[in-house]
Amino acid sequence: MQRRPDPDSSRDLDDVVTWNVVRVARFVGNRLAARLADNGLNPIQFGVLAFLEKEGELTTAEIARAVLLRPQSVAPLLDGLEERDLIRRVGVRAKGRRNPVQITEAGREVLDDAWVIAGAANDLGDAGLTSDESTELNRLLLKIALATES
Amino acid sequence: MQRRPDPDSSRDLDDVVTWNVVRVARFVGNRLAARLADNGLNPIQFGVLAFLEKEGELTTAEIARAVLLRPQSVAPLLDGLEERDLIRRVGVRAKGRRNPVQITEAGREVLDDAWVIAGAANDLGDAGLTSDESTELNRLLLKIALATES
Repeated sequence: MQRRPDPDSSRDLDDVVTWNVVRVARFVGNRLAARLADNGLNPIQFGVLAFLEKEGELTTAEIARAVLLRPQSVAPLLDGLEERDLIRRVGVRAKGRRNPVQITEAGREVLDDAWVIAGAANDLGDAGLTSDESTELNRLLLKIALATES
Repeated sequence: MQRRPDPDSSRDLDDVVTWNVVRVARFVGNRLAARLADNGLNPIQFGVLAFLEKEGELTTAEIARAVLLRPQSVAPLLDGLEERDLIRRVGVRAKGRRNPVQITEAGREVLDDAWVIAGAANDLGDAGLTSDESTELNRLLLKIALATES
C-alpha cells in the first residue's frame, strides 16, 4: 500500500471512544456468540431468556426494548425459541397481538449453561485486560447504560 | 407485567460485560450518527475517510478490514462517497477489481468538520461519566482492541 504524509498526525481513530466501543463490541459479541454456539443460542437469545427468567412474563414489545431490537426482529426470534420449547406463550390471545411469553423449564436448563459461559466471558484476560481492569470496564459501561437508558 | 420470584437473584445482565459493551456501543453509535447527520456522514463513512486520510490509498478489501465490514458492504458505501466527490478511484483498473481509493480535497474538508464532532463525542458527561472516567474507558477499550485485532 502506497503511503502519503499524514496531514494531521494528531488525528487517530484510536482516540475516538465511540470507535473503540463499537470495535470492542464487535469483538466481544463474536466471542460470546462462538462460545454459546454449542448450546444452540446466540447472545440475543441468551439475553431474551435471561430477561424472561428475571421478569417472569414479557410482551414482545417489552422484550424488544430490553434487547434493543425492533419488535419485528424479535418476533421470529421468539418463534424459534417457542419451537424449541424454551419459551411458551401464555394467557388469552389478544386480537391481532401475540401473547406474552414465559421461559419454560427446558429454557431454564439451557439458560443455566449459558450463564456459566456468559460469566466466564467477563474474564477478558485473553483480550489484554487484568481482572481489575475488566471489573472497572464493566463499572464504566454500566454507568453509561444506566444513565442513558430510560 | 406479572412478576414471578427470581430463581437466582445473583444473575443480572448488568454484570455481563459483553452485554454492557453491546448496549453502550448501540448508544454511542446512535449518538455519533445523530451528531454527524448534519454533515451528511454516518459513523462508518467517517471511519472510512479517516482511514484514507491516514493511510493515503487503500483497496476495498483494506477498507473493509479497517472498518470491520465485509467488502460487499463497503463497495456501495464507497460508490456513494465517490459520487459526492469525497473519494476518488486511482491507478490502473485491474480486471474484475475496483481501483484503490484516495480521499479528495472535498473529502478532507468534510472530514475536518467530522473530526471536531467525533472528538467532542469523547466527552461522555451527558452519559454519566466524568472526564477522567471517559479517558479510562477509552484506555481499557483500546487495550482490548489492540490485543485482539490482527
